[in-house]
Amino acid sequence: MGMPFELNTMIVTKGKEKRQKDNLFTLDKNGYRLYPIDIPVEVRHSRESDYHATAVIKKVEWENEKTTILYQLMALHSSN
Amino acid sequence: MGMPFELNTMIVTKGKEKRQKDNLFTLDKNGYRLYPIDIPVEVRHSRESDYHATAVIKKVEWENEKTTILYQLMALHSSN
Amino acid sequence: MGMPFELNTMIVTKGKEKRQKDNLFTLDKNGYRLYPIDIPVEVRHSRESDYHATAVIKKVEWENEKTTILYQLMALHSSN
Amino acid sequence: MGMPFELNTMIVTKGKEKRQKDNLFTLDKNGYRLYPIDIPVEVRHSRESDYHATAVIKKVEWENEKTTILYQLMALHSSN
Repeated sequence: MGMPFELNTMIVTKGKEKRQKDNLFTLDKNGYRLYPIDIPVEVRHSRESDYHATAVIKKVEWENEKTTILYQLMALHSSN
Repeated sequence: MGMPFELNTMIVTKGKEKRQKDNLFTLDKNGYRLYPIDIPVEVRHSRESDYHATAVIKKVEWENEKTTILYQLMALHSSN
Repeated sequence: MGMPFELNTMIVTKGKEKRQKDNLFTLDKNGYRLYPIDIPVEVRHSRESDYHATAVIKKVEWENEKTTILYQLMALHSSN
Repeated sequence: MGMPFELNTMIVTKGKEKRQKDNLFTLDKNGYRLYPIDIPVEVRHSRESDYHATAVIKKVEWENEKTTILYQLMALHSSN
């Protein structure tokens, strides 16, 4: 047995993020996911998006086979 | 660089747990700690305690370089 | 996406361990599994075994969706 | 107690990589580090390098408080 986890190195929102205030967002993901916290990570709408942003995850919660992250958007980038 | 965390395979309370209700407790620990969730783990007062219990962690939160866990006590055991 | 792994807090051999020499054994497991290294962990034949041992994992390898551990058996215990 | 880990989301070589053959390299890092395996990650000479590459980690080994990775270089990018 053991406990299934997923290592995530970027935030993929699929447009499901919820703005809490200013540039702070929460996002729910299925399953238990390990994210880097307190260091810059990429945010993308989907894995294939050209357009992406940089964020810092401030809080991670695991409960009921769901992961909830709180992140602060830092900067936007475009590949165009 | 990278993000430091600690892999924990049991709960060591040092008597700092807080009863929320019935057999549900919360515990704050320094740093980011990865605990197994939803599966039985040992609970000890200290690493060397003879006396221990079994619990299931229901929720883990990482924020501000602290880890907070919510766990449900299942059974008590004594080595005596 | 992301990278799936499994958090393991004990060694479950299912009798597939291979003795390398003395009390050093290797064990192959499917998938990527995160084990605690350099600290005592339980070894069981199956999840439900009464009989168990204590070991220290000395080496962990991840490759081709398999995990190989090298562990040193420390002590045997029986619940009888 | 517990077992200290570091979550790494990119490979930082500091020029210490060793070519094994073709575009396969090994790299030793201090401490136990968790890397994403089998998925593309960035490779940089230092955290601040403009120049970077993409690689896929094929193998991770943890032993004696060291992590050794084997990675395959995929593509080079320059910000200039």
